[in-house]
Amino acid sequence: MSLLVTGTIGIDTVETPTDRADGVLGGSAVYFAFAARLFTQTRLVGVVGEDFPDAFRRVLEDSSIDLTGLETRPGAKTFRWHGRYLENMNERQTLRTDLNVVGEAPPQIPGELRDTGFVFLANTHPAVQHEFIRQLTGPKLIVCDTMNLWIESERAALLETLKGVDGLVLNDEEARMLGGQTDLPRAGQAILGLGPTFVVIKKGEHGVLLVSPDEMISLPAFPTEKVEDPTGAGDSFAGGLMGYLAATNRFDREGLKSALARGACVASICIEAFSVDALAAATREDVEARVAKYKAMLAFD
Amino acid sequence: MSLLVTGTIGIDTVETPTDRADGVLGGSAVYFAFAARLFTQTRLVGVVGEDFPDAFRRVLEDSSIDLTGLETRPGAKTFRWHGRYLENMNERQTLRTDLNVVGEAPPQIPGELRDTGFVFLANTHPAVQHEFIRQLTGPKLIVCDTMNLWIESERAALLETLKGVDGLVLNDEEARMLGGQTDLPRAGQAILGLGPTFVVIKKGEHGVLLVSPDEMISLPAFPTEKVEDPTGAGDSFAGGLMGYLAATNRFDREGLKSALARGACVASICIEAFSVDALAAATREDVEARVAKYKAMLAFD
Repeated sequence: MSLLVTGTIGIDTVETPTDRADGVLGGSAVYFAFAARLFTQTRLVGVVGEDFPDAFRRVLEDSSIDLTGLETRPGAKTFRWHGRYLENMNERQTLRTDLNVVGEAPPQIPGELRDTGFVFLANTHPAVQHEFIRQLTGPKLIVCDTMNLWIESERAALLETLKGVDGLVLNDEEARMLGGQTDLPRAGQAILGLGPTFVVIKKGEHGVLLVSPDEMISLPAFPTEKVEDPTGAGDSFAGGLMGYLAATNRFDREGLKSALARGACVASICIEAFSVDALAAATREDVEARVAKYKAMLAFD
Repeated sequence: MSLLVTGTIGIDTVETPTDRADGVLGGSAVYFAFAARLFTQTRLVGVVGEDFPDAFRRVLEDSSIDLTGLETRPGAKTFRWHGRYLENMNERQTLRTDLNVVGEAPPQIPGELRDTGFVFLANTHPAVQHEFIRQLTGPKLIVCDTMNLWIESERAALLETLKGVDGLVLNDEEARMLGGQTDLPRAGQAILGLGPTFVVIKKGEHGVLLVSPDEMISLPAFPTEKVEDPTGAGDSFAGGLMGYLAATNRFDREGLKSALARGACVASICIEAFSVDALAAATREDVEARVAKYKAMLAFD
C-alpha cells in the first residue's frame, strides 16, 4: 500500500569535526521519504518557500517520491537549519534555526491523498498533527514522532494527538520525558497508556526498543565505523520502518520486527554521506544485502 | 573444559531506590563464578579474611564452584563494598570501599589448577593479572577485565598485561578511555592494536559490542522491566560468556556469538535479585529457556 508522510522539508547546513555541507536538502519528512521510497510509493506532504531549489525538487522526483502534496508558498522562505556535530558524532549543537514557512499556516493534505492507508506524522506541533489526522479518510495505520519541546510545553495537545495514533516513534530522552520514567521499558509501558498500541524508542548508536502491551523487542544498530553525517538517522529509520510496513501491509509482531530491521539498516546507510546522498543512491537490493548481514549477525546457536 | 577465574570476593551492602541488602555475598569473581558454573566446572581463585561467613562458603560449594583456590588469610578481613543505585538504576555511587585483604599480597593459583585451559582475570591491578598469567602452564584462552583506575594510573602495566591476553572485556566508558576514541567501534579497533584478538564492550542496558579484526557484532541486552539490583551484571555477563566458551571449547566467530548471547541472558537473570540469589537459584535449563526467547526476539524475515 502507499504511504504518506507529513513533516519538515528544509535546507540544511551541517558541520562535522572533519567536514561540512552547506545548503543541502534536509528535513524530517525528506529523510523519511528517501528511506520509505525504497519500499513503497511515498507521498510527501509539506511546504517550502519560493527559494526551494529546483535541483532539490528534481532529486525528489528522480527518487519517485510523489510531490502532489508539496506546497510551494508564494512570498515565503524554506525552513533552514544549521547544526554542528561534536567530536563523538552523537551530540550536536543547533547553531541556527530559521522556521520561515514552517512557522506559518501548515500545509493541507490534498484531497486525492487523503485516503492513504499508511501515514507517518513527522515531528511538528501536535495540534498540526491532530489536524492532519482529521483530514485522513481511511487510515489503516497512523504513526507519529514528537519532540521534547512539545512534551514540555504542549503536553495537553500532544496527549490529544496520541489518542488518535497507532504508534509513536521517539528517541530515548523524549520517551523518558513523556513516560515520566528513567527506565526505558517502563517509560514505554507508561506511554502505551496514553493511546498508542506500540512505541518505538530510538537509541541512536544503541539501536531501538519496541514496547507493546505483550512484549518488548530490542534490536541493535547496524554497527559501522563509517559515519559521515548522522543527520536524518532517526527519520530514515522511521522511513524504513513505515515503508516496509506499508509495502507488506502487515503490522503484527513479526511484521513489525522485520520492519524495525529494515529501519535499522536504512538508517545505517543514511549516515554514510551528507544530506540524502547515500539514501538517494541506494536501491532496495542494497538495503536487503545489508539486512542479510544484519540477520546473520543476530543469528546464533 | 574447565574454567578458572581470579578476582575479588567480597561482602557487599547495596542500596536501591526501593530496597537494600546488608552484608551479602559479592565481588567480581563471585558473580562471574555463579554465572560460569551454569555451563562448566568453575575454579575460583581469590582471598578472603577470617570474617568470611561459613554460609557464603556453603552457597559457593552448593553451587559446585571449586574452592581449591580460595585462600582464607589469617588475621585478615574480607573486602567490603557499599554502594547505592540512583533513581535510574544505571548510575551508582560508591559510599564506602574497604580493600582489607585485597590490598595485601594477592593469592596464588594453586599448583593443581595452573593447567586450566580457560582463564578469566577479573578486574584487579594489571601487574597482579600479569603475575597470574605467568603462573599458568597451558592456557588455551585468557580473557581479562580492567577498570578506569588502571587505564589512567597504571597504563604501562596494563599495556604489558594486554600483550598476554586473547580477549578483553570492559565497559563502554573504559573502552573509550583505553582506545582514546569516543566512537566505540573505533575505540575497539584501537584496543585490538594493543594485543587482544577480540574486545567485548559492555554497554549495560544497551547490550554489547564485539570488535575483532574481521568484524563487529552488536547484540542488545535481554529486555526486562524486572531490575532489583544491577550489581554483578557485567561480571555475570563475562561468566556466561566464558563458561559457554569453556563448555564448548570453541571460540571462533560463531562460538563467540553464541557465548555472547549466553552472557546477555545470564546477566539479565543476575539483576533480578540482590547479590547472587537469582544466579544461585538458576539452572542451565533456565538460561537456555531465556536464550530461546532472546533468539526468537532477534530472528525476523
